[in-house]
Amino acid sequence: MANVTSILKKRIQNVRQNFLSQKIDCLLIASPANISYLTGFMGEDSWLLVTGRTNILITDSRYTLQAEKQCPNSKIYVRKGRMTEAITEILKKYPDVRTAGIEDKIETGIYKTLKRKLPVLTKPVNHIVESAREIKDYLEISAIKKAAQISKTAMEKILKHIRIGMTETHIAAMLDYEIKKTGANPAFETIVAFGTNSAMPHHSPTLRKLKKIDTILFDFGAKFNGYCSDLTRCFAVGKINDFYAKVYKTVLEAQTVAINMLKAGVDAKEVDAAAKQIITSEKLPPYGHGLGHGLGIDVHEQPTVSYMSKSKLKTGNVITVEPGVYIPNKFGIRIEDDVLITDSGCEILSQLLKTDNVPLLKLA
Amino acid sequence: MANVTSILKKRIQNVRQNFLSQKIDCLLIASPANISYLTGFMGEDSWLLVTGRTNILITDSRYTLQAEKQCPNSKIYVRKGRMTEAITEILKKYPDVRTAGIEDKIETGIYKTLKRKLPVLTKPVNHIVESAREIKDYLEISAIKKAAQISKTAMEKILKHIRIGMTETHIAAMLDYEIKKTGANPAFETIVAFGTNSAMPHHSPTLRKLKKIDTILFDFGAKFNGYCSDLTRCFAVGKINDFYAKVYKTVLEAQTVAINMLKAGVDAKEVDAAAKQIITSEKLPPYGHGLGHGLGIDVHEQPTVSYMSKSKLKTGNVITVEPGVYIPNKFGIRIEDDVLITDSGCEILSQLLKTDNVPLLKLA
Repeated sequence: MANVTSILKKRIQNVRQNFLSQKIDCLLIASPANISYLTGFMGEDSWLLVTGRTNILITDSRYTLQAEKQCPNSKIYVRKGRMTEAITEILKKYPDVRTAGIEDKIETGIYKTLKRKLPVLTKPVNHIVESAREIKDYLEISAIKKAAQISKTAMEKILKHIRIGMTETHIAAMLDYEIKKTGANPAFETIVAFGTNSAMPHHSPTLRKLKKIDTILFDFGAKFNGYCSDLTRCFAVGKINDFYAKVYKTVLEAQTVAINMLKAGVDAKEVDAAAKQIITSEKLPPYGHGLGHGLGIDVHEQPTVSYMSKSKLKTGNVITVEPGVYIPNKFGIRIEDDVLITDSGCEILSQLLKTDNVPLLKLA
Repeated sequence: MANVTSILKKRIQNVRQNFLSQKIDCLLIASPANISYLTGFMGEDSWLLVTGRTNILITDSRYTLQAEKQCPNSKIYVRKGRMTEAITEILKKYPDVRTAGIEDKIETGIYKTLKRKLPVLTKPVNHIVESAREIKDYLEISAIKKAAQISKTAMEKILKHIRIGMTETHIAAMLDYEIKKTGANPAFETIVAFGTNSAMPHHSPTLRKLKKIDTILFDFGAKFNGYCSDLTRCFAVGKINDFYAKVYKTVLEAQTVAINMLKAGVDAKEVDAAAKQIITSEKLPPYGHGLGHGLGIDVHEQPTVSYMSKSKLKTGNVITVEPGVYIPNKFGIRIEDDVLITDSGCEILSQLLKTDNVPLLKLA
């Protein structure tokens, strides 16, 4: 198997292969996710310039040592002044660079400054690095698996320590603690939502206390070695309410149907439609968000799986599958796993326990 | 004292007062920090449209309930399709809007789409909301104080639980746990750096274990009710090395000299120069980062305090003061507090213990 250095080299080569069709002689990249994909660098406030011959990470003194450690394949330029001045300085050494492609994720105001100040023509370009990132290589897949494994271990551990009267924020803190102890980070703000709070898909944990009869929704993930997991599980506490149990089974069936359809070549929007169909056939309101999203360095990346999706799934895509039903002022249920698309079907990368019926927590 | 609703109303009014000079009839805001400043909304993926008469938060179904709870002053528009379509739909109801100002923080690619698709003229504008945010009102100052208080309590608590052999990530996890339990969040990725790792100003915690004789640098903060604190402290473990003690005293003196100069009307870059002067006079290498930065909703905001700063400090600015010295492959020391600029001087908002000499941790 290829090592990290040669994989990074290949990723940079893939970027260069776009230069001719895009009519650019170099590419300026400001997105931290794209920079870490191409160089291994995990810091911030740094840009990457890929020319036809070399790639240069432009950083500042806060990151010198880190960049030297993390970026085997890149030259490091430590700027003392403004970013634009540093790029101008570098470009002077590359007189054959006439047009610089600039990722169009860059802020409008910054683009205007670059256009005015750089000694070359500028051209906004997009999706060069993002397109490559849609297809995960084995290094990325094993990183996502590892991130999912960390999430699973953390959740299993904290379930034993939940007590009546604990707050949402306290339980979220326990989950984050277990994730961080391993050297990972929470991939996003951990959601712990009790009862009616779970009707808000993106609820932020509050000081609401867990009741003797209640429900809990967890939506959380770990980011490890630069890659994310993203998982959702729901539990009843003390007693299972019939309506909650019905919604749980419906959401689980929607997820199962969707997962069974996954395969390279399938229309993403048809998978979304099939999951929604299961929910509406039970006269329940379907989720307003997408069925899922790509997952990798960013917790939300391409491809999107929703009714607006235009693309077919491809081998190497890693996506979440997360149907939900939200009953305002009552509760919400969402079940989410991370899945790798393959030629013949899919592989579930997250091995967190999922039961056919609502799991019941009996707590002290 | 004015209540939250009337403060939000005033902030929106301040934005509108720029319409005439900017030659715009409405302002489209995509920055989550600016949106929370103007509306109280804490969610994501939502934009704010401020017209001459009203302000409309454009969100999606994941955030409907949250937006209704958090935004007393805004209309809520729940989009089902793309953002551009939603804005077009809304603008149809405001035929007197001819030119839409769009924050130039927006991605270049998105700006181009808006320019092409919106039924009005578009114009990139900047610093309208950011300028207002440089001057903190009493609600903001008390939120930052509270965030600093949470940081202080968390640090005091975990210092008692640090043991030889613990990893950087474990200690960072403990700190984050104490912060999260209160309902706050870490304001940024908590830095815990032992020994040589502290020579990297933005080190990410690793699995490196604490030795019997070692040093620890903590750089951490809490975000509570939308506002951040940002603090750095350094400790010797087991024994104090003379050179470390000398650097500690120098950095502390640099910080003290800087804080004593702070006052409305002072040139930011002169404060930076004075702190650096203390360090270089001891023949030590001064920090390569800025002396400090504005602090509020974002952990880095205006004004910047560095040798590149062009502005004078103003009453109501809240800034960090964080000189440092980094000795590659040996250690780094930085000391950081959060300070409010006043007419007559300044007020230190962070009350975390700071000793004249290196604090020594004696651990089990």
